[in-house]
Amino acid sequence: MKNTFVLINGLPGNVAATMARAVVSDPRFQLIPVSLTGPDIREPSFQVGEIPVTLIKPDDRKTAVSKIRQQFSDFIAIDYTHPSAVNDNARFYVQHHIPFVMGTTGGDRNALESDVSRGNIPAVIAPNMAKQIVGFQAMMAFAADQFPNLFAGYSLEIKESHQQEKADTSGTAKAMVGYFNRLGVDFKPEQIQQIRDPEVQQTQWHIPEQYLSGHGWHTYTLTAPDGTAVFEFKHNINGRQIYVEGTLDAVLFLQKQMTAPMGSKRLFTMMDVLHPQGES
Amino acid sequence: MKNTFVLINGLPGNVAATMARAVVSDPRFQLIPVSLTGPDIREPSFQVGEIPVTLIKPDDRKTAVSKIRQQFSDFIAIDYTHPSAVNDNARFYVQHHIPFVMGTTGGDRNALESDVSRGNIPAVIAPNMAKQIVGFQAMMAFAADQFPNLFAGYSLEIKESHQQEKADTSGTAKAMVGYFNRLGVDFKPEQIQQIRDPEVQQTQWHIPEQYLSGHGWHTYTLTAPDGTAVFEFKHNINGRQIYVEGTLDAVLFLQKQMTAPMGSKRLFTMMDVLHPQGES
Repeated sequence: MKNTFVLINGLPGNVAATMARAVVSDPRFQLIPVSLTGPDIREPSFQVGEIPVTLIKPDDRKTAVSKIRQQFSDFIAIDYTHPSAVNDNARFYVQHHIPFVMGTTGGDRNALESDVSRGNIPAVIAPNMAKQIVGFQAMMAFAADQFPNLFAGYSLEIKESHQQEKADTSGTAKAMVGYFNRLGVDFKPEQIQQIRDPEVQQTQWHIPEQYLSGHGWHTYTLTAPDGTAVFEFKHNINGRQIYVEGTLDAVLFLQKQMTAPMGSKRLFTMMDVLHPQGES
Repeated sequence: MKNTFVLINGLPGNVAATMARAVVSDPRFQLIPVSLTGPDIREPSFQVGEIPVTLIKPDDRKTAVSKIRQQFSDFIAIDYTHPSAVNDNARFYVQHHIPFVMGTTGGDRNALESDVSRGNIPAVIAPNMAKQIVGFQAMMAFAADQFPNLFAGYSLEIKESHQQEKADTSGTAKAMVGYFNRLGVDFKPEQIQQIRDPEVQQTQWHIPEQYLSGHGWHTYTLTAPDGTAVFEFKHNINGRQIYVEGTLDAVLFLQKQMTAPMGSKRLFTMMDVLHPQGES
């Protein structure tokens, strides 16, 4: 099987850089030495291992993409740019027939989805690229649908720890509150306990020091009214490896979509990537 | 709504006694002051709160049940007896048109199911009456069906703690191994770690002293190959309250089955009890 050519946009940003290093060291992929970047980036290029990647500002992207097309024919874009660029980038990919994985959060998500649906290229759009977390959320959605009030009367505690810089509450934790509510648990998103103090993270949560600057730990604890039954679910992620792997799985999924007979569906999520048959 | 009459068989056994006390203190139910028991039981009666319950040996059960039928018309049996009695009891209930909840484990389960299926009374047969655990197992089965290999490459650790008297490995933990295998995890039931030492249970697991003689704690920990992602699921049950509640829910489910137009289905499990529409 030939390598999949990948265009990673958003360099020199941290997540894009992590993705680029992962692509370079993964024999299934080949990194295109170009990256679409923002208007304020000063560096002309960014070094990924031994590969110098040319950074292209918005004004020059059309020309750059035609050259890439001539040289690489088929390729897939990974977007880890900036919330302010999400919608414009997506329209650009659709217009230039570039299948893409949108890992960037924010922007106008409804516009994003309708732009992709109206186009003729497949895209995976996912605010959370961690396959296993998405799978666990699907398990919770299944339980909420099938067994409403299974945990009626139970009390819930949700604690989440992230790097000190993260100001808002975990979006994953907030989504989980909805499932727990449908399972009969009385709980408001405001009751989620945010842990942001590195000392607490290190001494009480035992989060390794190297990940204090980048982690997402979540604990959900359900306790029966009389205290005799406790159910607890945890997902503790250090660093970005799980998101890198999920993003690359999404790229391979798009690659398959391109070679398979094209259905009418353009807009995919990580749920589609999880399903081996690509059902939704 | 009128009370549901309940015949609890297996007194003076511990689980039957716990069920009987729960029924007596629950206004939705009324305890029939009779219990079918084994041939070796010497006491003629057993006191449940203020109610003396007459213990009936197998030889006298036909007569006893006709009298109960005359007095109480419709009633539901709860069976917490002995593995050696499971099949004979079930045939007796079917023959005498007594809907029943079979909480007793063991016996010939295939024969049990076919006896019930051929009869014309509904029964709930469940080796595990804890609704929330059954719900969690259903979530795992869903994930195993929908997302095979979601945790491929992950390592798994399973630890379970039960009272010292329990010689075999937790059946729930063994069932879970099957789901984890389908999720891509290489793990054998023999790798389940059994904790039976009360000192370890108290000092390391912090299980309350009063429950050292009766508890079921389970922890499943999935770790990514590079250690950066950990998913953990726990269900920690002290005492029998969760099983009591599940059994009573099963009784109410049978009560509904008796008043609703009878379908062709006779054999139900806790999954049916969990579904609010009684779908299977």
